[in-house]
Amino acid sequence: MTDSEQAELSNERLRGASAFQLLHWMAAGRIDSRRLVSIYRNAIAAENASLNAFVAINEGVADLAAASDARRAAKNVIGRLDGLAVAIKDNIDVAGMPTALGLPGRKARMASEDASVVARLRAAGALVLGKTSVDEAALGTTGTTSAAGPTCNPHRPEFNAGGSSAGSAVAVAAGLCSFAIGTDTLGSVRIPASHCGIYGLRPTLGEISSAGVVPAARRLDSVGILARSVQDLAIVLQVLDAYDADDARSRRRRVALSPPDWEPGRLRSGFLPNLAALGVSREVCSVFSRATDALGLELGERMDADFSGYDFARMRRAALLIMESELACELEADLEDGVHPVSPRLRDMLEFARRKSAVDYAAADRLLDKAVRKARQLFEQIDVLVMPTVSQGPYRIGETERANDADLCSFASVAGCPAVSLPMGRLENGMPVGLQLVGAPGSDLRLLELAEVCASRLDAAPDYPVTPIR
Amino acid sequence: MTDSEQAELSNERLRGASAFQLLHWMAAGRIDSRRLVSIYRNAIAAENASLNAFVAINEGVADLAAASDARRAAKNVIGRLDGLAVAIKDNIDVAGMPTALGLPGRKARMASEDASVVARLRAAGALVLGKTSVDEAALGTTGTTSAAGPTCNPHRPEFNAGGSSAGSAVAVAAGLCSFAIGTDTLGSVRIPASHCGIYGLRPTLGEISSAGVVPAARRLDSVGILARSVQDLAIVLQVLDAYDADDARSRRRRVALSPPDWEPGRLRSGFLPNLAALGVSREVCSVFSRATDALGLELGERMDADFSGYDFARMRRAALLIMESELACELEADLEDGVHPVSPRLRDMLEFARRKSAVDYAAADRLLDKAVRKARQLFEQIDVLVMPTVSQGPYRIGETERANDADLCSFASVAGCPAVSLPMGRLENGMPVGLQLVGAPGSDLRLLELAEVCASRLDAAPDYPVTPIR
Repeated sequence: MTDSEQAELSNERLRGASAFQLLHWMAAGRIDSRRLVSIYRNAIAAENASLNAFVAINEGVADLAAASDARRAAKNVIGRLDGLAVAIKDNIDVAGMPTALGLPGRKARMASEDASVVARLRAAGALVLGKTSVDEAALGTTGTTSAAGPTCNPHRPEFNAGGSSAGSAVAVAAGLCSFAIGTDTLGSVRIPASHCGIYGLRPTLGEISSAGVVPAARRLDSVGILARSVQDLAIVLQVLDAYDADDARSRRRRVALSPPDWEPGRLRSGFLPNLAALGVSREVCSVFSRATDALGLELGERMDADFSGYDFARMRRAALLIMESELACELEADLEDGVHPVSPRLRDMLEFARRKSAVDYAAADRLLDKAVRKARQLFEQIDVLVMPTVSQGPYRIGETERANDADLCSFASVAGCPAVSLPMGRLENGMPVGLQLVGAPGSDLRLLELAEVCASRLDAAPDYPVTPIR
Repeated sequence: MTDSEQAELSNERLRGASAFQLLHWMAAGRIDSRRLVSIYRNAIAAENASLNAFVAINEGVADLAAASDARRAAKNVIGRLDGLAVAIKDNIDVAGMPTALGLPGRKARMASEDASVVARLRAAGALVLGKTSVDEAALGTTGTTSAAGPTCNPHRPEFNAGGSSAGSAVAVAAGLCSFAIGTDTLGSVRIPASHCGIYGLRPTLGEISSAGVVPAARRLDSVGILARSVQDLAIVLQVLDAYDADDARSRRRRVALSPPDWEPGRLRSGFLPNLAALGVSREVCSVFSRATDALGLELGERMDADFSGYDFARMRRAALLIMESELACELEADLEDGVHPVSPRLRDMLEFARRKSAVDYAAADRLLDKAVRKARQLFEQIDVLVMPTVSQGPYRIGETERANDADLCSFASVAGCPAVSLPMGRLENGMPVGLQLVGAPGSDLRLLELAEVCASRLDAAPDYPVTPIR
């Protein structure tokens, strides 16, 4: 290898590269983990004060990088992700770091053990770089409600980054980590992925263990992945996908994680007949039309997905009641803690759950079962559901959260389906917006294969890293 | 075949025979479905007034039997159960018959479609003989709370038959049908099986579709089978086990229903260390000890099952709150129907749920997840959990329902595990009592194989049919 070959990999190029590319360069000896981690640490030092992506840094990460490099030098890498630096959403336990959850009262609660997902990442060689900001109690779509302050969209800092996995999405988009882990209850991975112009995966319910993650709504909660390429989502999914006895929703794998048996030409794609009637903005509709037109034959046969009788807003309200009720259990101690009160917004939401009866909860939970059955019927007719990730693009920090932000994401959540968001273009204000593909439970890899085809055809991902904000 | 060979099959012998045996005799041409149905109809006419097992009879069943016989004569049987007469618990829809649910207000509600389980039975050739009595709203352990009056234990009519699948268990024990279908939320198949001296199976959650069954608590509800032999349970399970898109908890089969890969000599059996401390009566403990001693080596290596920190009563109360809340949704119309009020007992239970908050429901539901995790950990150490089915035997009709009747059954329910009850002996008053085997989710057939070994060793099943009550 010549000096010039080594030299061409600029810091900027490394920050914008996919994890897949980074692994390749590490395997080829062109970069090492120490350099990578050092670049991220320097970028965080320079940019995090304005972006507010990270809420805590693992000070030991440089030592971990040195150990990884030593393993690689000894031809003894311990797993697929050895040497990559991962950012972890701050509702997921990392041993020795607090799980603050965007709440002031939790800052001092040190996690004694790694969440299952973190343990699997470490076992595969990934280095925990730090914890990322989250809407308070992971309940929000804007990334602006954390006690640690709002997270800014790296494309334009006056805009929100989406939530609740705001910090993880921003850390990926701004090139501050190799990839990131988030959680998705009603869209919390996909919405910030869309707003930040990156790739986000919500896997099939139970594919990745939620043990050690603060529960928001157990039947909806899914650990998800945020990355700068579809390949990265597939690599990380295959590391994290496993049965875990400690997660009541984890189950022995139903679908082998091998390359899917799929003929692209025979795809049946379902489309919602009238996006505008569902509250999707004119601008998002127009970007969506252009993108799906550009995809042309890649989406196979186009069919109307029958959603008559399915009320997105009603389903979202039912899911929210379940989320609020479970959070009220989870945060009982915080609510009684006069020293660290939760925000009035959150307190109102949790009090709402206290005023509703157990019968109201049961009715909401029964309603969500309808979505599960709906998805099963739907995916007997189609292979993939194609729609925008969000009803509207990011809006300015300070503007009131829009009630329907999560409507298009909520279907996959309530139905337990895998869903991926990939960049499909930009709005007039330059902000990115995502295309969402939803598949039947267990079809995660097939969905990613299709997402890869779409991504290469659309080539809509913005350059990484974006211009640092000064 | 000689006349004497034909003649030896008395009506009494047919009423006491297992479904497996009946199928054999039908295949050999020694009996036909018309005779079988006629025997059941006559027995019901003579005995149902005192037993109160059936609440409705399918008047067309003789025609169905004739059609089955014609198929058999034409060597054209349509399925494994062709010609057998099945009794269906009255919380399961049978097209053209009301689903009364033990409530007065539902008598006129005709079901327009068969429940999925009934459709599968019919597709396999089984003939629906009638609907069987159920505790009101399937919420009870005694079989005495139906608006149609108490169901009597065929062994001694002054004793209860267990509930809530009382009528189905009695119909099997008294030889009024070939086998029966019940439902088990917290033990409603296993408790009456134990009280009536028959075999009862609660399969893995989701193995048999619950579509078309009135829900009591969706995460606990399981359609179950009541029969006069373990073989019957296995035959019927393999007919009914299937994925059903209409049941949100049904899933693509995880474990093939083929003969299990199991070495009996290597079995690890878990026992609860102190049954008396859990409120199990002295007498039940003593029958249990004798039975498990008699089983000796069949149960392999005996181990203490660690239930420290697991509070059976607390778990039962949590499960009950969920059941009451869901029933309050389901029965909303009945509660508002001034003409057909529910009983004060049921109204109090449903009102209790209305006074509890959505947060209380969430807390109860979260507690049940602990049982799921407990079971997963447990079944990494043991293969089968061995315990009595009930804490006490049947008691006299009119006595107050005992709060802990379902405690020993509730573990398999909340954990989603398969469980089988088989007769293990008699109490001093002559009433039967059951042995319960609980396995890991998906281990249904292995559990039945073990149950068959135990049943043949114990030979504790009372003779069928029992003396008719006059």
